[in-house]
Amino acid sequence: MSLNARLDPKSPLPLYYQLKEILRDAIVSGVWKPGDLVPSEHQLQADYAVSRNTAKKAIEELVQEGILTRTQGKGTFVAAPKLEQALTGFYSFSNAMLSRGITPRVKVISLKESAAKTTVARALDIQPGDPVTELMRVRYADQEPIMLETSYVPTALAPGLAAKDFEESALYSVLSSDYGLLVSRAKEIFEPVLIRDYESQWLGVEAGYPALLLDRIAYTAAGKPVEFCRSIVRGDRCRFYTELL
Amino acid sequence: MSLNARLDPKSPLPLYYQLKEILRDAIVSGVWKPGDLVPSEHQLQADYAVSRNTAKKAIEELVQEGILTRTQGKGTFVAAPKLEQALTGFYSFSNAMLSRGITPRVKVISLKESAAKTTVARALDIQPGDPVTELMRVRYADQEPIMLETSYVPTALAPGLAAKDFEESALYSVLSSDYGLLVSRAKEIFEPVLIRDYESQWLGVEAGYPALLLDRIAYTAAGKPVEFCRSIVRGDRCRFYTELL
Repeated sequence: MSLNARLDPKSPLPLYYQLKEILRDAIVSGVWKPGDLVPSEHQLQADYAVSRNTAKKAIEELVQEGILTRTQGKGTFVAAPKLEQALTGFYSFSNAMLSRGITPRVKVISLKESAAKTTVARALDIQPGDPVTELMRVRYADQEPIMLETSYVPTALAPGLAAKDFEESALYSVLSSDYGLLVSRAKEIFEPVLIRDYESQWLGVEAGYPALLLDRIAYTAAGKPVEFCRSIVRGDRCRFYTELL
Repeated sequence: MSLNARLDPKSPLPLYYQLKEILRDAIVSGVWKPGDLVPSEHQLQADYAVSRNTAKKAIEELVQEGILTRTQGKGTFVAAPKLEQALTGFYSFSNAMLSRGITPRVKVISLKESAAKTTVARALDIQPGDPVTELMRVRYADQEPIMLETSYVPTALAPGLAAKDFEESALYSVLSSDYGLLVSRAKEIFEPVLIRDYESQWLGVEAGYPALLLDRIAYTAAGKPVEFCRSIVRGDRCRFYTELL
């Protein structure tokens, strides 16, 4: 597992940062493969003539970024590649997972009617205070929680939605089959945020880890907004891909 | 500046999280406008009957997320809206800023030839160790640093590139005018990360703040990869927007 690379003491880049890039490169190049045990901090310290803190910091950041993964009492391993979601067209996370042989699973945390806050009302073109159905779900890839998603649908468009079973059925399927609302396009806004305490309990990662805040407004073909959805997506397990022409 | 909203002690959402949503909603709805001074922690503590810590945590997270901004000794203010970059087509940050009346500025941190690491070589379809020109820039919106960008161009495609002046000229302009390389499309990968110590000195934000890691491979119309670019974009100042059909 040792690599043909050296740190450059004359570089303006800090030593730990150089070490991190060397380890990352070993993974990208396939010298180290998903599931491989990586050298201990102690070993890195010896191999690269750095302090224990330098080795520790390089490893720590790669864990936060989802490049490495730590198993209590067993060591640090190369993580499985991140789930990559293409932004090249309207997508469903579930379908994207199925197409990769991953089993999507959904857990409903809460489902109720509530009064639309301003943010929600603006997105859905309704008035603040108007009733919306609020659906909070955790999405899993196989056994792993990857995103926490809160959907809001105007109650006027889909009365009785709060009584449906969203562990069995997908929201867009129910909107289509029971209400004739066919979602066919969306606007999305992405911004990086940090996992918060409240979210960390659902997502199984420490607070402070990187995440993507993803706001989606979904529309029918006629342009009527049907759903506003705010998701917190684990940055250590997911990334997004697009092509620009 | 006081708002018609109350915390719900029966909600499963933590109090600080509810307070944060109330403050965010006041900004989205325009009740509070960019530049407005927001109530002090002490005032929030009184208005919402919460502990000092609860008020502090709500404010702190909104600052990290770029919704609020703090000026030493003056207080906490509603931040200017984030710069929004559309992903609906091939874009240039400079042009996007100009179209919004913002002056883009570039500072070159380093410009040199180096040997391609595996990550870079794969992206550019060259061999690891092949020579590349490595250009590191900070991009500013008016006076504010917003991204740290490292571009790699195969030296074989653009010999002498390391001698050009990239504070005066844009990389794609030089590639086009001096080397006949017209960049016309790109692939981009986005993942959320944290600002690191090393980056924080260039970007003027604390380490640990949210950021977007943006990897771009830029191609000529014929499909030849011309540039691999890795950017760290401030999450408190920028977000990305797309439409999905």
